[in-house]
Amino acid sequence: MSAAFDATTDGALRSWIDVPDGSGFPIQNLPLGIVSRAYESPRVGVAIGDSVLDLALIAEAGLLEDALPGARAILTSGALNAFLARGRGAWSALRARLSALLSAGNEELRGAPGLTERALYPRAQARMHLPFDVGDYVDFYSSIEHATNLGRLFRPGGEPLMPNYRHIPIGYHGRSGTIVVSGTPIVRPSGQRRPDPQQPPLFGPSRALDIELEVGFVTGPGNALGTPIPASSAREHIYGMVLVNDWSARDIQAWEYQPLGPFLGKSFATSISPWVVSLDALEPFRVEGPHQEPEPLPYLRTSGAWNYAISLRIELQSAEMARRGLAPLTVSQPTFRRMYWNVAQQLAHATANGAVVRPGDLFASGTVSDLEPDFGSFIELTWRGTRPIRLPDGTQRAFLEDGDTVRLLGHAGGDDTPRIGFGEVSGRIVGADMGIKSTEVSP
Amino acid sequence: MSAAFDATTDGALRSWIDVPDGSGFPIQNLPLGIVSRAYESPRVGVAIGDSVLDLALIAEAGLLEDALPGARAILTSGALNAFLARGRGAWSALRARLSALLSAGNEELRGAPGLTERALYPRAQARMHLPFDVGDYVDFYSSIEHATNLGRLFRPGGEPLMPNYRHIPIGYHGRSGTIVVSGTPIVRPSGQRRPDPQQPPLFGPSRALDIELEVGFVTGPGNALGTPIPASSAREHIYGMVLVNDWSARDIQAWEYQPLGPFLGKSFATSISPWVVSLDALEPFRVEGPHQEPEPLPYLRTSGAWNYAISLRIELQSAEMARRGLAPLTVSQPTFRRMYWNVAQQLAHATANGAVVRPGDLFASGTVSDLEPDFGSFIELTWRGTRPIRLPDGTQRAFLEDGDTVRLLGHAGGDDTPRIGFGEVSGRIVGADMGIKSTEVSP
Repeated sequence: MSAAFDATTDGALRSWIDVPDGSGFPIQNLPLGIVSRAYESPRVGVAIGDSVLDLALIAEAGLLEDALPGARAILTSGALNAFLARGRGAWSALRARLSALLSAGNEELRGAPGLTERALYPRAQARMHLPFDVGDYVDFYSSIEHATNLGRLFRPGGEPLMPNYRHIPIGYHGRSGTIVVSGTPIVRPSGQRRPDPQQPPLFGPSRALDIELEVGFVTGPGNALGTPIPASSAREHIYGMVLVNDWSARDIQAWEYQPLGPFLGKSFATSISPWVVSLDALEPFRVEGPHQEPEPLPYLRTSGAWNYAISLRIELQSAEMARRGLAPLTVSQPTFRRMYWNVAQQLAHATANGAVVRPGDLFASGTVSDLEPDFGSFIELTWRGTRPIRLPDGTQRAFLEDGDTVRLLGHAGGDDTPRIGFGEVSGRIVGADMGIKSTEVSP
Repeated sequence: MSAAFDATTDGALRSWIDVPDGSGFPIQNLPLGIVSRAYESPRVGVAIGDSVLDLALIAEAGLLEDALPGARAILTSGALNAFLARGRGAWSALRARLSALLSAGNEELRGAPGLTERALYPRAQARMHLPFDVGDYVDFYSSIEHATNLGRLFRPGGEPLMPNYRHIPIGYHGRSGTIVVSGTPIVRPSGQRRPDPQQPPLFGPSRALDIELEVGFVTGPGNALGTPIPASSAREHIYGMVLVNDWSARDIQAWEYQPLGPFLGKSFATSISPWVVSLDALEPFRVEGPHQEPEPLPYLRTSGAWNYAISLRIELQSAEMARRGLAPLTVSQPTFRRMYWNVAQQLAHATANGAVVRPGDLFASGTVSDLEPDFGSFIELTWRGTRPIRLPDGTQRAFLEDGDTVRLLGHAGGDDTPRIGFGEVSGRIVGADMGIKSTEVSP
């Protein structure tokens, strides 16, 4: 993988912008997001250290046009879709250009009169927006540990894994219209559940509100109807990755999901992290996935390492913990590297029938559950509430309570390599009767 | 239902534009679509008789601005979404204005110098485009006959209906990116199937390519995240309806669908008819649905008639039949009126958890299967191939062959009321190895 030795990932590279020790946003990362300050329209920005660089202003100053023709229109738009549509050549060219402009010793941007004063500002001042307009949203089921756990919980007594699991990257379509950016309050969904099969179903707020810790990838140029994307072309179509919290109401899901799969148990909200980390930045962290037995059919075979060594973490903080100043509790720390099906296999499978992929389609991994106890959902962590989690405020949790905040975090590297951070995706549970109007909030 | 007596549906109303006997597009219909002629950009048009009226040109002439402020921008756009976003007041106002402009005796449009010469042209000259950009696509399962049939076929020996069926309008999300307009060739999908459970799965072109005859509704303004749309507000959110062919590969579907539902067996293509028929035009054809037992939970209760008396038809023509000039064979004639779950219940259910609905979201009914033999799919019509259909060319069909063309047609009324037609949604099967590039073709 010669791309792994691209200069933009060189650990020796330093920026003239200050990057605190332990930051997930060194010059080797350069994640893109959609940002604004007061009275500004949303535009593309890049995170570096504790700062944001407003790329719309850099483009307007003419500093990006050579690397990315049309940069001004692309980077002043309020979503990454136009950039995603440009494809791998444009992605790598912009990255290389930004890496050069931000490198210690380069004065093109740093020395431009008045420009950094306007374009560079503290990340804490940035209002973060949904980074791209999501076309279709597919959610896979690619952790074999998760699929096994859920099989045991939802179909006790049967074989936990379906016969198709080791042959197919199982997935389904979720609701793209309810994908929201990190920080958006999550209203507890109401719905039908049937706690007692001998009694009629009930309607009301979910009593089994859960999370799913996932990593998603976003696609670029896309394909024409009827023309599959082979696994070997995945790199041309996958721009980068985000963290995903696929909020789930387990009681609604359990009652509705047969025979057509999850619907309202999932469609009330899916949160994603605001910074999109490129495959280029993650290139040094590619690792071999688990051995697949039986060997997948030819269209699902990949060459090279297509798993990613990403460390993940789930934090939970109750309203009472926040009030008392108690730090969030880390409840799980799975790694992404052991996922059974990888992103190239997922994309090849999803298009094997000729389905269209568009710029901005989101493909999430499915819950990332690692070996016990590092599971990626509360239904697994508490084994459907039979092993509740004790919180520092003296309460315990089977599922989420109103006022709870969940934060998912992720990063790659960080020991003897630069730390490539995803930032976080967080959400606070709001009671079912309170309602909210906005889908975007400050981070 | 006082709206039923709106002047726009008055059967005595006549247009100064010729409407042939038996046309589904009289002045009482006025369906909207996205049209273009050579070298034109796509814009909104209305079908009347055998003609199309280019509404972009009518708006540019200033004739629609009073009824629909901003008409010029809305109607010159290449999708109905901006119009859908304006809501019921705007929908009815534009309809009333068009009804007036097209009524016999009205000279405002007819008498405008040179305008009708430019704006009114034969429907056969219109290139039809996808009428709206589809946000999310939900497919329900609302025919109890269909659900019973598929339960028998996919889970022989078990209870055909799941315990949730009479409590929940079961549905799932489909792939919006592969929704195409009528006339688009359908490439036979390849995928995994496992014809022999004792042998490993295979990959290749589907051998069980099927249709699903459906009717879909498209939504307007939408709601904020976390705020359900009650069934009583359905009329404010549903603009109109189209015919839907939810192409299905039964062999792929059967092997993949557990536990998360249909995915690649459905996501290769979904075709919709190009003309959107408004609820206003369908108002005289509202009928009571079947008795629901047990009574649905309160959030699913509707008052008034929410089913629609729409007559549907499936036609099949093989390549050989076309070559020999043999007319298409009508294989089924279901009605839509007996669907178990109605559109208001579907919308209320889909948003009960606070999910967002946007302008241009499509909600399809699920296969419309009526009493035997008027089923809405070949797997039902041929009972999984055990009762093949004989064609006039001497061949027989269990599922679709390459070169077959399927046409779905629908209309309401037509006896002692104006005939409100949907036109058709058609598609021809193209062999898996041929490929196509375009997603839009002439009708």
